[in-house]
Amino acid sequence: MIHIYTGNGKGKTTSALGLIVRALGHKKRVCLIQFMKKDDQYGEILFFKNNSISIDIFQYGTDNFVDPTNPQEIDKQQANLAYIKAIESIESNQYDLIVLDEINVAVKWELITIEMQKKLFDFVTDAEIVMTGRCADIDMINMADLVTEMKEIKHYFNAGQDARKGIEY
Amino acid sequence: MIHIYTGNGKGKTTSALGLIVRALGHKKRVCLIQFMKKDDQYGEILFFKNNSISIDIFQYGTDNFVDPTNPQEIDKQQANLAYIKAIESIESNQYDLIVLDEINVAVKWELITIEMQKKLFDFVTDAEIVMTGRCADIDMINMADLVTEMKEIKHYFNAGQDARKGIEY
Repeated sequence: MIHIYTGNGKGKTTSALGLIVRALGHKKRVCLIQFMKKDDQYGEILFFKNNSISIDIFQYGTDNFVDPTNPQEIDKQQANLAYIKAIESIESNQYDLIVLDEINVAVKWELITIEMQKKLFDFVTDAEIVMTGRCADIDMINMADLVTEMKEIKHYFNAGQDARKGIEY
Repeated sequence: MIHIYTGNGKGKTTSALGLIVRALGHKKRVCLIQFMKKDDQYGEILFFKNNSISIDIFQYGTDNFVDPTNPQEIDKQQANLAYIKAIESIESNQYDLIVLDEINVAVKWELITIEMQKKLFDFVTDAEIVMTGRCADIDMINMADLVTEMKEIKHYFNAGQDARKGIEY
């Protein structure tokens, strides 16, 4: 099954993390591939590392945030590496759950193409594949087995609250 | 801050679980209180137990699902115990993150009253409080600091797929 968690509200990546925890609890094999992220100080990364959790994590990003109005060549290279890892992970049949974190945004910002994302639907696999990120393409929504829109009804960011350690990262 | 994750789509409890993981990664102290659930075979519960994760978990339910058209006295008793534990947890100042899983549904099904849920907003606390479950009351949405509606765009349940171990529980 392919899940898509999209929308402008809080809860997309955390939802994927929750699925990971649930799957690991049942001894499933899990792979987390993060597009446009490269930071081992995220709470979730620290958690899995500190507790020696059996999960394969691959981050593909740079030390800088991607500028959507002017993405750099290195950003595209990293996203393409993440994509290659995604295919490798699916083809390996080593995993029961594969999370492609922020892949929807990587497509939206044209770091990889929508055709590439579509191609992921062609693989025959028993693995559960989870794609997160705002602005999922309408074709993805039509093709996926499960789609939840995380819709922002209200966010404390709009009241001036900054991102906080342990809550947003 | 008080978060509400509501709506009919998949991703509410998993989102709270993801927040838990992120908070634990930054050494925050976490309490998970589950309304209407009593099953130590949920993937997330097994995960936290098997990996000796430092988290306090309290489940309040019975071996049977609550029948919303005919809730039993024991269902109300359990929900009230969960509520008392919620207040204790907040007042203890022992936790940085307190998750009240399915509390919105417990209110909707009148196992506890909306006034009781509202009262939780009166406590002065630095803890992050997360309330999950469909059908959050409009007053809760107005009072919370962050609200995400997990909106079902598409769900494989509607295509006949049953709940699966490691994905739905």
